[in-house]
Amino acid sequence: MASSEIESVNILANEFSKLPGVGKKTASRYAYYIVSLSKEGAKTFADAILNVKDKVIMCEECGNFTESSPCPICRTRNSEIICVVKEPKDVLAIEKSRSFNGVYHVLHGTINPMLGIGPNDIRIRELLDRVNKNNTKEVIMATNPDVTGDATALYIAKLLKPLGVKVSRIAQGISMGSELEYADEVTLSRAIEDRKDI
Amino acid sequence: MASSEIESVNILANEFSKLPGVGKKTASRYAYYIVSLSKEGAKTFADAILNVKDKVIMCEECGNFTESSPCPICRTRNSEIICVVKEPKDVLAIEKSRSFNGVYHVLHGTINPMLGIGPNDIRIRELLDRVNKNNTKEVIMATNPDVTGDATALYIAKLLKPLGVKVSRIAQGISMGSELEYADEVTLSRAIEDRKDI
Repeated sequence: MASSEIESVNILANEFSKLPGVGKKTASRYAYYIVSLSKEGAKTFADAILNVKDKVIMCEECGNFTESSPCPICRTRNSEIICVVKEPKDVLAIEKSRSFNGVYHVLHGTINPMLGIGPNDIRIRELLDRVNKNNTKEVIMATNPDVTGDATALYIAKLLKPLGVKVSRIAQGISMGSELEYADEVTLSRAIEDRKDI
Repeated sequence: MASSEIESVNILANEFSKLPGVGKKTASRYAYYIVSLSKEGAKTFADAILNVKDKVIMCEECGNFTESSPCPICRTRNSEIICVVKEPKDVLAIEKSRSFNGVYHVLHGTINPMLGIGPNDIRIRELLDRVNKNNTKEVIMATNPDVTGDATALYIAKLLKPLGVKVSRIAQGISMGSELEYADEVTLSRAIEDRKDI
């Protein structure tokens, strides 16, 4: 450690560097911001971190994060259509789009043999139980459009079809506002394959 | 608040959004990362924040952040050359470049009439006291090359010159590895003005 470095600041920067997408330099900027805070400001920050771990639990129905189980979405919405996502933050993204009014099912991961994540490591069993128990009409597979997301969607679809439920996959294509020129080849070929009549 | 949002997560995301350069979306990603931590992991993070505020103080000599005053740099280095910077993180940046072996003086700001920051609001008086008290030979003004950084450097240089001390300013020009084509006009004109014989 160089003489200009401060141990407690380094320890904090190391914590910040664990945040998604944060490198060493950014982590160090964040740590210096904390040093510049008042003592009360730092305490508020630390309390917010502890508070989240005290209060946030997993909804026993859908697996989303919530402060009360079942979560407000499971409690209040029609459960005929279930939208399956990889992570809790995906629920937030879809909710912000205001395009879906049913309930969710959070898998907490996707099948990924490279990382040793098999079908039993994510919440697939719980999804089948829900579909069996309730009058589910449709399951929308909204896992990410990548290799593991696609594979997981197909795997779950195979398990669901014998139960007589409709299974769909979110559309893939060119993003709104983007330019064809800069789209990657797979996206472009899917957009052409899945073209719609107008 | 939409039913998909969780109060304690929102409060934490709000704290994260105060970090430099962090927007709403990034803050929310950080907050979800904390939710995914173990309870111990979250406690370690919170403790690192509190610890920094408990331990880090300002060096009474140079104004840099330190865990013991005078700081290791002021304690061990020759104080004949003082490098004046705006903020503690600038010390870290210069130390990383291994290009300077003297001591520092952290102003904790630059003169900025737009923000109501005058000469008495930053650590100029302390700098003059140091120069008067010690056998300072040179003061290097290493404030940022922007309007307020330049103005502050000039202002301080005017105060220091009557004390018979050499005052210099860090060189400005084209950054290493950058391309002329993309350099802004002011940078380019300074680089030409300050050209060196080779």
